[in-house]
Amino acid sequence: MYTKSVEIVEVAPRDGLQNEKVQVPTDMKLDLINRAIDAGARRVEVTSFVNPKAVPQMADAEAVCAGLPERGDVTYIGLVMNQRGADRALATGRIDQLGAVCVATDTFAMRNQGQTSDGSVEAAKAIIETAKAAGKTAQATIAASFGCPFEGEVQDARVIAMAAALVEAGPVEIALADTIGVGNPAHVTRLVEGVKEVVGDIPIRMHFHNTRGTGLANVWAAIEAGASTIDASIGGLGGCPFAPGAAGNVATEDVVYMLERAGIDTGLDLTKLIETNAWLVPIMGKELPAMVAKSGGFPIAQSQEEEEELA
Amino acid sequence: MYTKSVEIVEVAPRDGLQNEKVQVPTDMKLDLINRAIDAGARRVEVTSFVNPKAVPQMADAEAVCAGLPERGDVTYIGLVMNQRGADRALATGRIDQLGAVCVATDTFAMRNQGQTSDGSVEAAKAIIETAKAAGKTAQATIAASFGCPFEGEVQDARVIAMAAALVEAGPVEIALADTIGVGNPAHVTRLVEGVKEVVGDIPIRMHFHNTRGTGLANVWAAIEAGASTIDASIGGLGGCPFAPGAAGNVATEDVVYMLERAGIDTGLDLTKLIETNAWLVPIMGKELPAMVAKSGGFPIAQSQEEEEELA
Repeated sequence: MYTKSVEIVEVAPRDGLQNEKVQVPTDMKLDLINRAIDAGARRVEVTSFVNPKAVPQMADAEAVCAGLPERGDVTYIGLVMNQRGADRALATGRIDQLGAVCVATDTFAMRNQGQTSDGSVEAAKAIIETAKAAGKTAQATIAASFGCPFEGEVQDARVIAMAAALVEAGPVEIALADTIGVGNPAHVTRLVEGVKEVVGDIPIRMHFHNTRGTGLANVWAAIEAGASTIDASIGGLGGCPFAPGAAGNVATEDVVYMLERAGIDTGLDLTKLIETNAWLVPIMGKELPAMVAKSGGFPIAQSQEEEEELA
Repeated sequence: MYTKSVEIVEVAPRDGLQNEKVQVPTDMKLDLINRAIDAGARRVEVTSFVNPKAVPQMADAEAVCAGLPERGDVTYIGLVMNQRGADRALATGRIDQLGAVCVATDTFAMRNQGQTSDGSVEAAKAIIETAKAAGKTAQATIAASFGCPFEGEVQDARVIAMAAALVEAGPVEIALADTIGVGNPAHVTRLVEGVKEVVGDIPIRMHFHNTRGTGLANVWAAIEAGASTIDASIGGLGGCPFAPGAAGNVATEDVVYMLERAGIDTGLDLTKLIETNAWLVPIMGKELPAMVAKSGGFPIAQSQEEEEELA
């Protein structure tokens, strides 16, 4: 009934850290990346090449790239918003795949990238072409696919049209991002099915934030509808300092727990993910949202075999 | 594709509070019940009739019942573990429906009710008969349907056999409880479909804890598989003092957000639920797990229309 395996893209080093107030030193970011790889991650979003004044946490993008372990079996993704970012990413010589982003609404696209939604699609296509011309690949993400913090509802037709336009440039996959965590599984099912009809053989990746608790329900609906890849962040790291209560990406531990228990292979080691969460907590100076790191997996470990109240 | 409406049983006054360390005064429990009803709840698990030494929070069961608002449109449920509990619940004259519980494994049944799993089914059937003889109804819950803290995996066949046995007594519904929050949506789909085959027209209720983050994913899978009723707790109140990291029931706010946004009617008012969460926080002396109470619903409220970082 379900797929036998799902690919997880580890996004903690970029989307996870991007909005955190604590400035994480470059060597600790590299530790995080190494730990993710050790836990089985084979695609890692390692940084973004954006204006360091806008996103200070990503100011060390080149330094992070310089320290990446040399491995033939891991794809390093660098997020880029424009041509300048693409050039920086390619200049490092260590980024395997550019992450291009376009935004489903004009207001959000204008606030984030200074261009219309259509303009952001053209920019993403240009980035994909740049990557291919450099012998690399590119992924494309449609931000605010499930709702916009400024314009509210986003129509499926708009997202589907953007996906169809992106296809022309030949990305390795197209992602639908629930940037502000407003999605619900019925919406996810509908939109994934709609996008599938226009992207042909290009795989669909999903990017969910757990802002309203629906993150794993949306992951499940997406997989049932045929998405093949899920972005997730160790610890559920993330959240936005400007939006009180905003939560991070879906937590890698929780996604892996759910999928592995459901018989779907992720290639990731839950124990090592939980250990990485424990390592991260003192660095971030706070408890992280991931639930499985607190409860442990299953079967229940001996230490937790205390009385539990009924039902 | 999906059902048009789902019934929510509000369980915060019982399962939500049961394991909390803060002893909540009876009048505040009644305030909570009144707030739940004002938000639209039409079935409320108001208390349990258990040994007050075992569960001190429920020592005021009779006092809670005496203070319940007189309403013809609300069903008050009292949880009972045995004949003595059933007699106490019926003696109040205010409980409309007995909640009988049986447990899927011998070890858990023995630790909680001092009887085998089979014995717990017989006890539940006797409680259902007692309720009917008194002109009331009874619901039946199969605890640890998705895993046991002592025995680990629970076989579907065991739960299905228990459901088939319970049917003989004529409960108004049969619930599958993920008491320790280990369920995953594939398991939920499979077990709901299996139980449906043996319970005929008796509706299926689901009881999930969000211990490993899968709560809403499991709710969604259950509804897709045909469950008609979901237990939920305002604020996601709950958790077990004996199991560090254990989380509460799925939060009513989060379930309502997900379902209403998916076009499924719950009859509940999200704004009033969020207000009740805010009222509860100082009483419980801690932030509650519910996510929507922190983030707000959607569309985004003006106060949250701050810059949000991309994707």
